[in-house]
Amino acid sequence: MTRILDRSPSKSAEKRQALVDIGTAIFTQKGFGATGLDEIVQAADVPKGSFYYYFESKDVFAHAVIRNYAAYFARKLDRSLDDRTRTPLTRLKAFAHDATEGVLRFEFKRGCLVGNLGQEMASLEEAFRILLLEVLDTWRERFRLCIHEAQAAGEILTTVDAAELARFFWSAWEGAVLCAKLERSRVPLDNVSRLFFDHMLVPAPVDRSC
Amino acid sequence: MTRILDRSPSKSAEKRQALVDIGTAIFTQKGFGATGLDEIVQAADVPKGSFYYYFESKDVFAHAVIRNYAAYFARKLDRSLDDRTRTPLTRLKAFAHDATEGVLRFEFKRGCLVGNLGQEMASLEEAFRILLLEVLDTWRERFRLCIHEAQAAGEILTTVDAAELARFFWSAWEGAVLCAKLERSRVPLDNVSRLFFDHMLVPAPVDRSC
Repeated sequence: MTRILDRSPSKSAEKRQALVDIGTAIFTQKGFGATGLDEIVQAADVPKGSFYYYFESKDVFAHAVIRNYAAYFARKLDRSLDDRTRTPLTRLKAFAHDATEGVLRFEFKRGCLVGNLGQEMASLEEAFRILLLEVLDTWRERFRLCIHEAQAAGEILTTVDAAELARFFWSAWEGAVLCAKLERSRVPLDNVSRLFFDHMLVPAPVDRSC
Repeated sequence: MTRILDRSPSKSAEKRQALVDIGTAIFTQKGFGATGLDEIVQAADVPKGSFYYYFESKDVFAHAVIRNYAAYFARKLDRSLDDRTRTPLTRLKAFAHDATEGVLRFEFKRGCLVGNLGQEMASLEEAFRILLLEVLDTWRERFRLCIHEAQAAGEILTTVDAAELARFFWSAWEGAVLCAKLERSRVPLDNVSRLFFDHMLVPAPVDRSC
């Protein structure tokens, strides 16, 4: 009876989500290859055999974790970049501020899932590469649109193509998250925010005449 | 007799170096946690028991690999940044060009050892963090000196502190190496080179009057 109750649709969905959440926490700390299934099922308090009721393999599980992380990150981007009460440049800065707080909240232990798994690319299946790249492309596209808006509004002066700038930001940001973990400090994140937003995007001087 | 010959000082040093070279190749592809000792001794054609003749543990081995990588990278930096026949900005660009060629040579399979192991920070001993950060700090310092020289010579116009610019470059570069692995493309590396050297450092206009 307990067994049937445990596998009721809502309980089952809850357990599945608990596994995915634990996978997200562990993979962002130590990556995919170094994480054993034992560690995940123990943390989720699920018998190892039951794991295969939810996911047919560790790879399928990791794909669910990546999709879950992408959905979480999309909400983070929405919060900052869709806030029409702010100017485009302020929205971009708000994202960096929010993302920095996220890194601090986990005391520099968790990195970016795309960064962690991306480093292991040589030993992961091609399907991982395609999925991770798809996620990264979404982030770049969100930034490109907002940078383009800032350019069109004359809020920033740089004439460098918005797609190039968005790509540049995400390389720098991924690297800064890595350096922040290594230094256990927010300095690398603040450095990228300051130099990218204040020097690379070249904010237009504020017109104080009106 | 063969046994004695195999452990002669030069043979022994050779075997030790072979293990370190193989460790460098594997760790830059898939990191530390996901790599088993078996894989390393097999690739080096060394019996597992003999591994402990050379290194007392996998951690001690990994430290030797990091030091070996740091020495290799120092030579790479020397080649570009110590070439006094070139201007400081041209030397910095030469490094990025050389490093890009390195990533291409390994067909985007190998990343940066500091980047790979840095991502695993949460599950590595504190001694790793200190050593990796020491290596990264050396790279930043080499760049700081050369950027400062370019500023002092009036070759670049930006007044942003050279240490800040060097820190930014290394975040962006580490991120670009990751993205290059993910995209299997040099585009992220070229993007960082172009935007950092041509826009962030703001090269002074060439005086064509003389």
